[in-house]
Amino acid sequence: MKIALTGKGGVGKSTLAAMIARVVRDQDNKVVAIDADPDMNLATIFDVSRAREITPIIEMKELIAERTGTEVGQPAPFFTMNPKVDDIPESYWVDQNGIKLLVMGTVQRGGGGCACPENAFLKSLLGHMMIARREWVILDMEAGIEHLGRGTALGVDYMLVVVEPNRTSAETAHRIRKLAADIGIKQVRVVGNKVRGPSDEELIRKACEGLDVLGFLPLSEQIRQISTGETSLEQLDGETLEPVRNLVARLS
Amino acid sequence: MKIALTGKGGVGKSTLAAMIARVVRDQDNKVVAIDADPDMNLATIFDVSRAREITPIIEMKELIAERTGTEVGQPAPFFTMNPKVDDIPESYWVDQNGIKLLVMGTVQRGGGGCACPENAFLKSLLGHMMIARREWVILDMEAGIEHLGRGTALGVDYMLVVVEPNRTSAETAHRIRKLAADIGIKQVRVVGNKVRGPSDEELIRKACEGLDVLGFLPLSEQIRQISTGETSLEQLDGETLEPVRNLVARLS
Repeated sequence: MKIALTGKGGVGKSTLAAMIARVVRDQDNKVVAIDADPDMNLATIFDVSRAREITPIIEMKELIAERTGTEVGQPAPFFTMNPKVDDIPESYWVDQNGIKLLVMGTVQRGGGGCACPENAFLKSLLGHMMIARREWVILDMEAGIEHLGRGTALGVDYMLVVVEPNRTSAETAHRIRKLAADIGIKQVRVVGNKVRGPSDEELIRKACEGLDVLGFLPLSEQIRQISTGETSLEQLDGETLEPVRNLVARLS
Repeated sequence: MKIALTGKGGVGKSTLAAMIARVVRDQDNKVVAIDADPDMNLATIFDVSRAREITPIIEMKELIAERTGTEVGQPAPFFTMNPKVDDIPESYWVDQNGIKLLVMGTVQRGGGGCACPENAFLKSLLGHMMIARREWVILDMEAGIEHLGRGTALGVDYMLVVVEPNRTSAETAHRIRKLAADIGIKQVRVVGNKVRGPSDEELIRKACEGLDVLGFLPLSEQIRQISTGETSLEQLDGETLEPVRNLVARLS
């Protein structure tokens, strides 16, 4: 299963990506979580203090070129062989409690350019990678919609759009659905997040009319504390994870 | 004065941009607010229902080429003449209660490409534009850090980084300060937002150690209601705007 978490900034993409990763790992799946946002924060949510040690996968580009003798910019044999998740060299991930965490790459220098090369490489990698049964690849996408112009998440099984009870995040969801359709992603599902009660659910359902709502997650002090470091992903209790398990059950 | 609002997604960049716009307009300044996020939502915060009618400024590129006979891609006389804010044709903005709202441009089609051309054009326009006294240009930047790789906000007087009481938005602030320095922006100031009390201020100060904190804005139900459409920018009362006025006073 390949899924991408998308949505307006701050809606809770990374936190939901991490919670889904934990839930499917607990169900004995292999899990790869990829931070596809140059403004990387998935490692922080996973509480990986060694985040800086993770070599961004963009650097595989040079490695592949070097090993195979192909020039950068040419289609590499690595891709035509349809690599498996396990073919990614160890130096490009950190294992955090059984979840492999990868990062796409970041902006190294102000004025140094856009993140187009990073996105293009990730797109190739994802497009060619063979995903086995009981293997989950979870992509935490950049906030907003530019990645859809780039088609970075091309070929995911599901694109989840996280929405909060407000207008702007719902507008982003509508844009994402339209742009996702352009690149052939048909399974786009809204997840309503930080819901304080029935009126928030109603607000989201109304603002997301025409979109397919997969489910809702309540506003949770425990989940908020992940953002401050007071709680860790592994400390989340069964009750907090229950709505996430329900979402996952509706996907698989 | 040219300022850019930056920060992790969801921290409140657009809302603060709109509140600053209102405060400086109330002080009899000319105000231009530019939505520099392809995932446009500044118009929604301003309650501009005609957002779709705003022609994105990227389309000026063709207009300039056409009018001046230069080819797209060549430096255009429009820029070398150092245009004033008033030189931007009327079709590229909407006047909302005395604030001129412009949008950079969005992603038109999934797989259609990145937002590099839009960012490059905005960068040229901003770089050459003459800003008069009592004239404010307020840029609402895309979430995250990619715009800093592109140097879109080159030449702003201040870059404000909005931070919430959590780790990830503070990490983004540190990245922004570093990348902003690379493109020569020295005046980078943190604004702590959605602060619930002294412990949140303390959390932000600690997480932003080494950064220059301009001030704090309290968590406000009235401001949250802007996001749901229950309150409008013009309805915000003096008390709610007071901390914003204080921030502005420290800038000018």
